[in-house]
Amino acid sequence: MKKINVGMLGIGNIGTGTYRALEQNKETVESRTGLSIEIVKILNRHPEKDRGIDIPKEKYTADVSEILDDPSIDIIVELIGGIEPATEYMLRAMKNGKHVVTANKAAIAANGEELSRTAMENHVLFRFEASVAGGIPIINSITQALTVNQFDEVTGILNGTTNYILTAMTEFGRDYKDVLKDAQAKGFAEADPTADVEGLDAGNKLSILTSLVFGMKVLPEEIPTNGISSITKEDIGFAKDFGYKIKLLGSAKQDGKEIACSVEPALVPNDHPLASVENEFNAVFLTGNAVDKLMFYGRGAGPLPTGSAVMGDVIEVSRSIAKGAAFDEVPLLRYDADLTFIGEGTSSYYIRLDASDIPGVLSAVADSFAEQGISIKTVLQRANSDSSQDAVPLIFIVHKTDRNMLNLALESIKKISAVREIKNVLRVLDEEA
Amino acid sequence: MKKINVGMLGIGNIGTGTYRALEQNKETVESRTGLSIEIVKILNRHPEKDRGIDIPKEKYTADVSEILDDPSIDIIVELIGGIEPATEYMLRAMKNGKHVVTANKAAIAANGEELSRTAMENHVLFRFEASVAGGIPIINSITQALTVNQFDEVTGILNGTTNYILTAMTEFGRDYKDVLKDAQAKGFAEADPTADVEGLDAGNKLSILTSLVFGMKVLPEEIPTNGISSITKEDIGFAKDFGYKIKLLGSAKQDGKEIACSVEPALVPNDHPLASVENEFNAVFLTGNAVDKLMFYGRGAGPLPTGSAVMGDVIEVSRSIAKGAAFDEVPLLRYDADLTFIGEGTSSYYIRLDASDIPGVLSAVADSFAEQGISIKTVLQRANSDSSQDAVPLIFIVHKTDRNMLNLALESIKKISAVREIKNVLRVLDEEA
Repeated sequence: MKKINVGMLGIGNIGTGTYRALEQNKETVESRTGLSIEIVKILNRHPEKDRGIDIPKEKYTADVSEILDDPSIDIIVELIGGIEPATEYMLRAMKNGKHVVTANKAAIAANGEELSRTAMENHVLFRFEASVAGGIPIINSITQALTVNQFDEVTGILNGTTNYILTAMTEFGRDYKDVLKDAQAKGFAEADPTADVEGLDAGNKLSILTSLVFGMKVLPEEIPTNGISSITKEDIGFAKDFGYKIKLLGSAKQDGKEIACSVEPALVPNDHPLASVENEFNAVFLTGNAVDKLMFYGRGAGPLPTGSAVMGDVIEVSRSIAKGAAFDEVPLLRYDADLTFIGEGTSSYYIRLDASDIPGVLSAVADSFAEQGISIKTVLQRANSDSSQDAVPLIFIVHKTDRNMLNLALESIKKISAVREIKNVLRVLDEEA
Repeated sequence: MKKINVGMLGIGNIGTGTYRALEQNKETVESRTGLSIEIVKILNRHPEKDRGIDIPKEKYTADVSEILDDPSIDIIVELIGGIEPATEYMLRAMKNGKHVVTANKAAIAANGEELSRTAMENHVLFRFEASVAGGIPIINSITQALTVNQFDEVTGILNGTTNYILTAMTEFGRDYKDVLKDAQAKGFAEADPTADVEGLDAGNKLSILTSLVFGMKVLPEEIPTNGISSITKEDIGFAKDFGYKIKLLGSAKQDGKEIACSVEPALVPNDHPLASVENEFNAVFLTGNAVDKLMFYGRGAGPLPTGSAVMGDVIEVSRSIAKGAAFDEVPLLRYDADLTFIGEGTSSYYIRLDASDIPGVLSAVADSFAEQGISIKTVLQRANSDSSQDAVPLIFIVHKTDRNMLNLALESIKKISAVREIKNVLRVLDEEA
């Protein structure tokens, strides 16, 4: 049986998950591939630390060169995370003729073009299924089974922490801060939750998807990004009244020669498949001109699910090595499309105001929308149960409009004296056709 | 640019969809693969028939040998359907050194072992993504990205016609026969709907999945199969009261060394991802020991979605040809697992009775379950609104039990004089953990 040697950089959560996924299923992998795949060396700068996994000590090295420069190693699995030194290590491995598998979304979002080009120049494979939506085989599907399709849209729930928080807020009518504290206590959110709750993690993943689906380079820092910290239980309650759930969506859409991208909380209609994705689960919804609507649902994080995706790539590369075909004719990541990035694009929106409970305020607000050519789909004005306050909530859902037109309307709405405050503005996902 | 020549057998719905999917996206395919893929010959025994698609007449032939024996053709796409002569044509193509792509579930379910062996012997590729769940890339995902996993379960909504009918019955509280007539009028169900509504179509697909996921040969005719024609609006209503939707599920599960399979309508808990799959959509849910839960959702039929899957395979084979690696080391379809097929296996069940409205009937039925060691999870006895009848519905959901034990209990329940009729017995899908 042909043997494939793997060198692994990093043995944190995903590293232990990858090691475990292979160890638990060694016989299965051998019978399905006819290959003996072994993780032979592991970069571990803290070998004294207990990882809760039984790995022979002689596999560990603290010197990355012992892996990157070892001619017996066929595939490097990069699981250090962060942009550097991960990118440097991957490039060096490729130049040494090694295939590279990674779960590193930040490094690909920042340096995908260089990594991809270097892999092509050195006739090695570069794979990264685990970098988007964990165990869900979305990248494989887009780049293989769905290759014939031109895609219109890719929209995903790409971050498990925020979906867990929004689900708990929705189910129990609780406030954001309470739920976040709970999630931190349970280990679903990190002590510094910024990357998750402000949408930065989802932005890295959306940047990768945009390259795969549209062949377009959009850096994470270019993507209009809003996190979930502004979402209140009131927003969730009003969304529910209108038949929606609030989800943090990463979305990229093509319209003619234009690409619009955003990461932001949005109202998802209850009958859309994304609305039923709860708790820490992720999902990617896409539409292609042959396959029509598709959704992939599963665990977007966690050691074993992510390890499953890493091992899927390692197995693909190993099979290609065995066949003498471990090179790509065309890279998976593409940045050459003749398209223009236009920011957030058009959308339907939800707008929540607090207004004085006096006659005329509704018509004044409606006038401000009309002046920008924005038509109102639904409006809800609710009497305030607390009679000591004279402010009442006023909720609008408006039909598709450009965000700039909406901003002009909001400027004019702010000037209406009876309008106390614009409490929130959220995207509304298109209804299913 | 390297050219790949494809010969297509059959130009019905899927054939036209495949041709159209490629024609619409020719440039996209070329830029993503670096290959020029062309459908050069098409077996069409009725060239006079208008297919609603513009295909140059010179591509048509009524003689299958002109395709199977043409040395310039690299890949045969078999879209005739049915077991024969499709199997014979595919075997002949393989023996002629041609790679074979098919959407033919019946031929694979019946002859997968011979087709798979012949492909291996002739060092050609055999691919069949479109045979299960149309455009959904489930076979690719199972055999590539998810290879490291040992699977516990695969459960799917594998037939669009029945899901459309059950959805309409649920939404509008209508009877099976009414909805079926409507579906036939709209073209969602065939004039003879047997293969769909009696679960035979789903059985073929489940047979293929069982080979891919467990390496186990279970022929469609061995799978315990029940269709949806026994489902009434009453069943759907009671299921709803208990928090379930009724779906036709094809399911295969491994427990130790045993494999259980069935195709039957089942109660799916509302919070299970399969419950939100509506109308003509399909979905496949599976659990693996690394990836955990996954679900794939999309169109299980239709010319273009199925054409998307066929072209996905054609592109994979074409890329492999271009790399000189168009062979498998290990076949995708496996029939060599050391497992025993045990039929339907254990499940939780829903039982609906009509009983006389007299004291003691509930305890008599409960006793019959208890005698077989079956414990009751929930029971509903509802007063009859129609006072002219003294029969009342009595609904039980029982905890996991062997179907044989349940049958013994049902025999004894039938003998209770106050029990008028056992109206229906349906599987209940496990609650989410």
